[in-house]
Amino acid sequence: MPSVLVAGASGYAGALAARLIDRHPHFELAAITSRSEAGTRHRDVYPHHRVEMVMEELDLDRHGAVDAAIVAYPHRASAPLVAALLERRVRVVDLSADFRLRDLATYEHWYAAHPHPELLGQAVYGLTELYREPIRAANLVACPGCFPTAAILALAPLAESGLIADVVIDAKTGVSGAGRGLREDTQFVAVDENVRPYGVGEHRHMPEIDQELAALGAPVTAAFTPHLVPLDQGELLSCYVTTTRPLGQEELERAYAAGYGGERFIELVDRPPGVRDVRETNICALSVHADARTGKVFVFAAIDNLWKGTSSQAVANLNLMFGFDEGEGIS
Amino acid sequence: MPSVLVAGASGYAGALAARLIDRHPHFELAAITSRSEAGTRHRDVYPHHRVEMVMEELDLDRHGAVDAAIVAYPHRASAPLVAALLERRVRVVDLSADFRLRDLATYEHWYAAHPHPELLGQAVYGLTELYREPIRAANLVACPGCFPTAAILALAPLAESGLIADVVIDAKTGVSGAGRGLREDTQFVAVDENVRPYGVGEHRHMPEIDQELAALGAPVTAAFTPHLVPLDQGELLSCYVTTTRPLGQEELERAYAAGYGGERFIELVDRPPGVRDVRETNICALSVHADARTGKVFVFAAIDNLWKGTSSQAVANLNLMFGFDEGEGIS
Amino acid sequence: MPSVLVAGASGYAGALAARLIDRHPHFELAAITSRSEAGTRHRDVYPHHRVEMVMEELDLDRHGAVDAAIVAYPHRASAPLVAALLERRVRVVDLSADFRLRDLATYEHWYAAHPHPELLGQAVYGLTELYREPIRAANLVACPGCFPTAAILALAPLAESGLIADVVIDAKTGVSGAGRGLREDTQFVAVDENVRPYGVGEHRHMPEIDQELAALGAPVTAAFTPHLVPLDQGELLSCYVTTTRPLGQEELERAYAAGYGGERFIELVDRPPGVRDVRETNICALSVHADARTGKVFVFAAIDNLWKGTSSQAVANLNLMFGFDEGEGIS
Amino acid sequence: MPSVLVAGASGYAGALAARLIDRHPHFELAAITSRSEAGTRHRDVYPHHRVEMVMEELDLDRHGAVDAAIVAYPHRASAPLVAALLERRVRVVDLSADFRLRDLATYEHWYAAHPHPELLGQAVYGLTELYREPIRAANLVACPGCFPTAAILALAPLAESGLIADVVIDAKTGVSGAGRGLREDTQFVAVDENVRPYGVGEHRHMPEIDQELAALGAPVTAAFTPHLVPLDQGELLSCYVTTTRPLGQEELERAYAAGYGGERFIELVDRPPGVRDVRETNICALSVHADARTGKVFVFAAIDNLWKGTSSQAVANLNLMFGFDEGEGIS
Repeated sequence: MPSVLVAGASGYAGALAARLIDRHPHFELAAITSRSEAGTRHRDVYPHHRVEMVMEELDLDRHGAVDAAIVAYPHRASAPLVAALLERRVRVVDLSADFRLRDLATYEHWYAAHPHPELLGQAVYGLTELYREPIRAANLVACPGCFPTAAILALAPLAESGLIADVVIDAKTGVSGAGRGLREDTQFVAVDENVRPYGVGEHRHMPEIDQELAALGAPVTAAFTPHLVPLDQGELLSCYVTTTRPLGQEELERAYAAGYGGERFIELVDRPPGVRDVRETNICALSVHADARTGKVFVFAAIDNLWKGTSSQAVANLNLMFGFDEGEGIS
Repeated sequence: MPSVLVAGASGYAGALAARLIDRHPHFELAAITSRSEAGTRHRDVYPHHRVEMVMEELDLDRHGAVDAAIVAYPHRASAPLVAALLERRVRVVDLSADFRLRDLATYEHWYAAHPHPELLGQAVYGLTELYREPIRAANLVACPGCFPTAAILALAPLAESGLIADVVIDAKTGVSGAGRGLREDTQFVAVDENVRPYGVGEHRHMPEIDQELAALGAPVTAAFTPHLVPLDQGELLSCYVTTTRPLGQEELERAYAAGYGGERFIELVDRPPGVRDVRETNICALSVHADARTGKVFVFAAIDNLWKGTSSQAVANLNLMFGFDEGEGIS
Repeated sequence: MPSVLVAGASGYAGALAARLIDRHPHFELAAITSRSEAGTRHRDVYPHHRVEMVMEELDLDRHGAVDAAIVAYPHRASAPLVAALLERRVRVVDLSADFRLRDLATYEHWYAAHPHPELLGQAVYGLTELYREPIRAANLVACPGCFPTAAILALAPLAESGLIADVVIDAKTGVSGAGRGLREDTQFVAVDENVRPYGVGEHRHMPEIDQELAALGAPVTAAFTPHLVPLDQGELLSCYVTTTRPLGQEELERAYAAGYGGERFIELVDRPPGVRDVRETNICALSVHADARTGKVFVFAAIDNLWKGTSSQAVANLNLMFGFDEGEGIS
Repeated sequence: MPSVLVAGASGYAGALAARLIDRHPHFELAAITSRSEAGTRHRDVYPHHRVEMVMEELDLDRHGAVDAAIVAYPHRASAPLVAALLERRVRVVDLSADFRLRDLATYEHWYAAHPHPELLGQAVYGLTELYREPIRAANLVACPGCFPTAAILALAPLAESGLIADVVIDAKTGVSGAGRGLREDTQFVAVDENVRPYGVGEHRHMPEIDQELAALGAPVTAAFTPHLVPLDQGELLSCYVTTTRPLGQEELERAYAAGYGGERFIELVDRPPGVRDVRETNICALSVHADARTGKVFVFAAIDNLWKGTSSQAVANLNLMFGFDEGEGIS
C-alpha cells in the first residue's frame, strides 16, 4: 500500500486531503505535518474530519521516506519542499500555485521570484479531465486553483473548437476559498447578509485561466471577477462567451456531450446547477445556454472549491499516478 | 397631511411601503388592503414593521378617497386598480411591471395583453435620479424593477456618453426579491449553502433595462442573468462593459462624479461595495474600474432590493409628487 | 442481496434513505415510491443524492415482493402500509410516529385514533444503542423521532442510574426537521437571521422522550422546547439535569464512559460539541458537565437530524435486522 | 446641545453608539476615539453606519471637555478612563463590566483586581426599565451585559413576587456578541451551519444575572448557558422557571402586564418571539407560558444584543440623564 505524507495539514485544503487519504482504501496516511500547529491532534482542529493523527513538525529524514506527498503549503513556501521531496524520489501532488504557470515571467509577474524555476518544466497541470495521461506518468502534479478548475472545464469544449472570441467570467465563492487565516473580511459578521466582489482586476487565478484557454486554442484575456457569498463551501462560475460564430443550443449541447462524454465527474445538466448539488463531491456540474437575444453563449459551472477545486482532485490525480481507479476514495 | 392608501400590503414590497408611510412625518397612512389576507392585522404577518393597522378588503368607494396610493399588486392585476384610482384623481405610485415598458408590443411579448394600454403614455418611469422632474408632475409613476434600478444607475453615465458597445450584467440577489409566495425554491433548505442562476435568458427585467439604456443613448441588448444567493435583502450587480473607446480610471471616475455629483442617494465608493453597506437604505453604492488587462470597464452596484429597489424609492417618488423633501421618511 | 423498498421517497427522510440504500454494498434498492410525485425522477428533486430511479406510485402487488421496506410516510398514513407490508412478510423500518409510543392512550392523546393498534406490541423502538438485540430479531422497527434520539442518548446513563430528579431540554434544530412541505415559517426569509421557539408545551416528541426515560428508570416529565435556527441540517440538545444526589465531573464522565464504552457512533467529547462536527454522519456527540455553581449536570448532544436522527439510524437498524455490520453504508 | 464623546468607537458597540449619537436630534457627537485605529475614518470600517468622522487617539485635554461620554472599552481598561472623565465632571455611560457588579469581591473573583473600587458605589445599573429614576440623576451608569438585559427583563415580574425557586436560562446569540476581535471561532466557516454552547459554567454574565435577581427578590443561582448560532445580531433567551407555587396562564400574563404596563420598549407577545422581530430596535419582546405538563413557567425574551443589549440602551440612559425623551434617537 503506497504511503502518503500530507504536508500542511492544518489548512483547509491539507486537512481535507488528510481525511481523504486517511479513509482511502489503497493509500496509507503515513504522516501529517503542520508548520504552525505541530503537536496538535488533527481532530482537535477539524472534528468533522475525524483524523486521529497528531500533526508533526516536518522532518524530511523521517517524513521523506514515503511513496507520495500532497503538499498544501502557500506559494513560494511550497517549491523548496517539493524540490526536496522530488530529490528523495517522492511523487508529489502540489496544491500551491508554484508549478501551475508554465511561463516563469508570468509567475514572477504575479507572484515573485520563483524558488525553483528548474522544476517548472517537470510539472503536469493537474486538471484531471484534460491532462489525464501525462498525470499518470508525472512525478510532480500541480493542482489547479479552484477558479481555474471550474473556468477551464466550463470553457474547454468551446476553446478547443476556436469558438471563444471574448469571455466574461463572474465567480461566486464560499468563504473557505479564502483559507483558514484570521482575516476581518472572513469573520462571520463581515460575510453574513453580504455579497461583494474582491480582487477586482488583480486575482492571481487570472493568468492560470488564460494560460489554459490559450493552450486549448483560445488565446483570450478573460475578464474574471470573484465575489464572496455567505456560504462555506462551493463556487459557481457564470461564463458569458462572445463566440467567433453563431451557435445554436443543439450544436452547443453536442459539443459538450462530445467533449465530456465519458467523464464520470462532469455532469451536463439541463437546468443551471447550484453549488448544493455538488457539495462534498469531486463533480463539476455544467449547463450551457445559447442565448438567442444576445447571440452569446452562457456556461454555468458549479464545483465544491475544497473538493473538486482542490483536495479531491488532488486525490484523483494521485489515484492515476499509482494506477488506481480515478474515483477511489473520493466518491 | 396627504392621505395614502397602500394596496397589496401583505406582500414584501407593500408591507414595507405601509411601514414607511405609517412612520412618515408628512403622509398619513389612510388604509392598507390585501386581496388574500384581509382581516389580518399587518403586525401579525410582519412583526418587525410594527404597523398596527388591519389589512382590509379593497373597497374603492371607501378607499378611493385618498390623495395618493401605492399599488403593490402583481402585473396585470395592477393596471385595472391603477386605472380606477386615476379616475378618482388619486395620484398613484405603481410597483408592478404594468407601466414600466413604454412600448405596448414589448409588454405584450414579455407579459400578456395589457389591461389598460391607454395609460402607458401617462406613466413616468420612477427611477428617481433620472426622471426627477417629470415625477414631480406625474399622476402615475411606474417604479422600476429592482434589477433595472441598480443596472441603469450603474450604467447611466456611460450610456449617456455613448460609451457602451456591449454589456454583461451578472446579478446576485437575496431571496426577498422572489416575493412572499410559497415556493419550493425559496424554502430555507433550497437556498441555504447554495448559489444558482435563474431565469436564464428569460428574466422579465431585461426589456426594461434595454429600454432605459436605449433612452439614455446606448441601444444595446444587455446580457443579464440573476443568481439567487443565501441572504434575505440586497442585490449586487456586476456590469462588464465593452466600451466604444478606451477609458482610463481617472476619466471614468470623472464621468461618474459628474453624473452623480449632487445625488444624495448615490454613493461613489473606492472599493467594490457589498450589499451589507446599503441594507435598509435608499442608497445605491457604485464603484467603477477601468480594467487595463481586458480594456473593459467594470461597474459594481449594490442596493437593497426592497428599499431602493422597490419601496423606499416609491416613497422618494411620492415625496417629490407632493413637494416634500425627497429623503423624507426614508433616511 | 436483500431487496429494499423505500416508500415515501420524496420527503427529506425518505429521499436520504433511498440514497443510502442505493449506495449500500449489501442491499439492493428495489423501488422508490411517492404519493405526490410519482413519475418524477428522484434526481430531479434531489440532485445531490444522485439516485437515478424514478419514483413510482405504490403498488403493493409489485412493490410488496421485497425483503424489507423503509416507510417514510406521515403518522397515521404509515400504519396501514406497514400492516400490509408485514402481512406480506416484508420486514419494516418505519420512520413515522405510528409505532413509537407503546401506550395506545398516549398515542391517541397526542395524535388521533390509531389505525392499527394491534401492531403496537410487535414494534421495537429503533434507538440502535439501547435496543440493539431486539432490533436484530424484529419485523417492525419504529425509528425514534430526531429529538428523542438525541435526548435519550444524552440522558440514558443518568436515567439508568436513577440520577434524574428533573430535566429541562432545550433543543436547537435546523430547518430540514420541519419536512419538505411548503410553509411560510420555513421560507428562507422567515428563518434567516432568526431564532425562535416553536411547539412550546405541545411538541409531539415529548411523550416519546418521557416514555423512554421512564423505561430506563427515570419517571420524569421533561420540559422540552425546540427552537428553529438558521441552518439546514443538525440539532443540538442542551439538557439541564437536577440530579437526585450531587455528582462530580469525574463520576459523571465515568458513568458515560461506562454506558457508551464500545459504541462506535457515540462520541464523548471534552468540549461542548457543535452540530457541524456530526453533519452527514450517524454520530451522536456528547459532552457532560457537572456544574459546581448550580449543582446541576449539563449534557450537550449534537446529531444530524436527517442522519442519526432519522435515515442513517434506519439503515443501521436494517443492517442489524439482516445480520450486516451496523455501520455498513452509513460511515 | 450637550456634546458627547464616544471612546472606543472601533468596536461593534462603540461604533453603533457613535452612529446613534451622530444622528441624534439633541446630542452632538463631539469626537470618537479608538486605541487601535486612531486616524481611520469610522466609515472605512463601518460603511453602513455612515459616520464620516475620523477616529482619534484619546487626548483627555481635548476630549475631556464634553458633557457626556459613552465608554466602550474592555473591562479593566474602562475604569481608569471613567475615573478620569468623572473627575472632569463628564457624565459617563460605561458599556464595560467594570461597574456592573456592586460587590467588589464578586468582581475580583470573575475578573481581576478592580482599578477603581471607590467608584463602585456611585454607579447606577443601567437597565433602563428597572433603574429609570436613579439613572436620571446618575453621573455614572453601568450598562448591563446583553444577556443580563434580556434575562432580567424576562424574569423581573416573577422575581419581584418571590415566585422563582429555580431557573435554567438557555441563551442563543448571534456572533456580534463576541466582539470584533479576530478569533477562529467567529470566522464564517466556524459558525456557518453550526450551533454550539460556549462558556459553559463560566460565563461572566452569570454573577450579574444573579445579582439583579437577588436584588429583585429572587436569591437564586441561575443555570445560564449561551450558545452561538449563525446570525449576526440578536439573542433569544429561553428561561425555564421552577416556581415557588403553581401559576396559571392568566395569572402569569397579568403579572407581566402589571409589571410592564406602560413600558414602550417591552413588548408582551402572544406567540414566542423571534429575534428578527426586534432586529435593530431598542425593544425586548417577551412571551410567557405556564406549562401545565411540567408545572414550570417558560419565558422567552428576544433582543438585539447590539441595540437593547448594549448601545441603544446606552443612548436611552443618556436621554434620561439629560432630560430628553427616553426613545429619542433610537426609535
